[in-house]
Amino acid sequence: MSGKTIVFMAPGFEEMELTITVDILRRAGIEAKTVTLEPHLNPVKGSRGIFMVPDMVVGQVNCHDLDMVILPGGIEGTRNLGQSSEVIRILHTMHQNGKKIAAICAAPAVLVKAGLVKGRRLTSHPAAAEHMQGVDYSEERVVIDGNFITSRAAGTTFEFAFAIVEQLLGKASVETVNQGVLALL
Amino acid sequence: MSGKTIVFMAPGFEEMELTITVDILRRAGIEAKTVTLEPHLNPVKGSRGIFMVPDMVVGQVNCHDLDMVILPGGIEGTRNLGQSSEVIRILHTMHQNGKKIAAICAAPAVLVKAGLVKGRRLTSHPAAAEHMQGVDYSEERVVIDGNFITSRAAGTTFEFAFAIVEQLLGKASVETVNQGVLALL
Repeated sequence: MSGKTIVFMAPGFEEMELTITVDILRRAGIEAKTVTLEPHLNPVKGSRGIFMVPDMVVGQVNCHDLDMVILPGGIEGTRNLGQSSEVIRILHTMHQNGKKIAAICAAPAVLVKAGLVKGRRLTSHPAAAEHMQGVDYSEERVVIDGNFITSRAAGTTFEFAFAIVEQLLGKASVETVNQGVLALL
Repeated sequence: MSGKTIVFMAPGFEEMELTITVDILRRAGIEAKTVTLEPHLNPVKGSRGIFMVPDMVVGQVNCHDLDMVILPGGIEGTRNLGQSSEVIRILHTMHQNGKKIAAICAAPAVLVKAGLVKGRRLTSHPAAAEHMQGVDYSEERVVIDGNFITSRAAGTTFEFAFAIVEQLLGKASVETVNQGVLALL
């Protein structure tokens, strides 16, 4: 088991979904680098107006180094991810290499748009369900099907992040990290 | 009922605690401005290495405009809040004016240090309990006593933030906001 991941930070990203995921993964010892779609490291504005500073630019991403790519949601953030040819290319490369992809809130719709998840069991934010054509849609809070991990909304992000920790490091790491976090799982 | 708040962003602030609180309050229509202890608006580094951009500097805070002051935790963040004479001064002014103060994780210890909560029912992160001398210590996930709202850890922040929404706007706002968030409350 190992743990190198990237977390996309597109304009309009949902701040709670990005922050909880990155923070929990780093507490577990998993590398989680935030990736801007711009060619510079200027702060990126989230869906509720919080600006955060990304760790790297999308052009620096090397899929062969990664165990997982993670897509936070937010309506605008998801639209920006889906319109990025570099994001779509990275998702295809990860999928072809048998690597894991995780998406939450509206972002699972990007996996549909990329043509990667036909017939797969997936969830999304209820308001994004209309964009989830061709999948085996679930209303569970976290859904794992093969290499895909999906979840529903900002309020399910602790469960989503700990599901990622369990996939990459195992159940014991979840319990260790949550002793300091006290999330409802 | 009204809603103008500030949320301190000291170096080493716990990113999940700040982000969840600010995001949920803004979704509810409550003003939540992040406040740096520095005299400039440079990004501030959180406990897990995420840099965020503050909205205002501490010297700009006018307590008479505010309904509530909010202290996120993080070990270093809490230490920096407790060592700031401006933070202590703001807490005293809010308390004297009968305004609300909320603190989570290690940050309730700053209220003890400021001498504001003798005999009050409060909670904190379990690891910070030793610093909570003189209070009526509770292990509940969120504790409200008079104008003080305290909570335990990053994983209790949704409950903490929604308790603030309920205090400032009422229960109906909690339900409306959580329809889009799906937090476990």
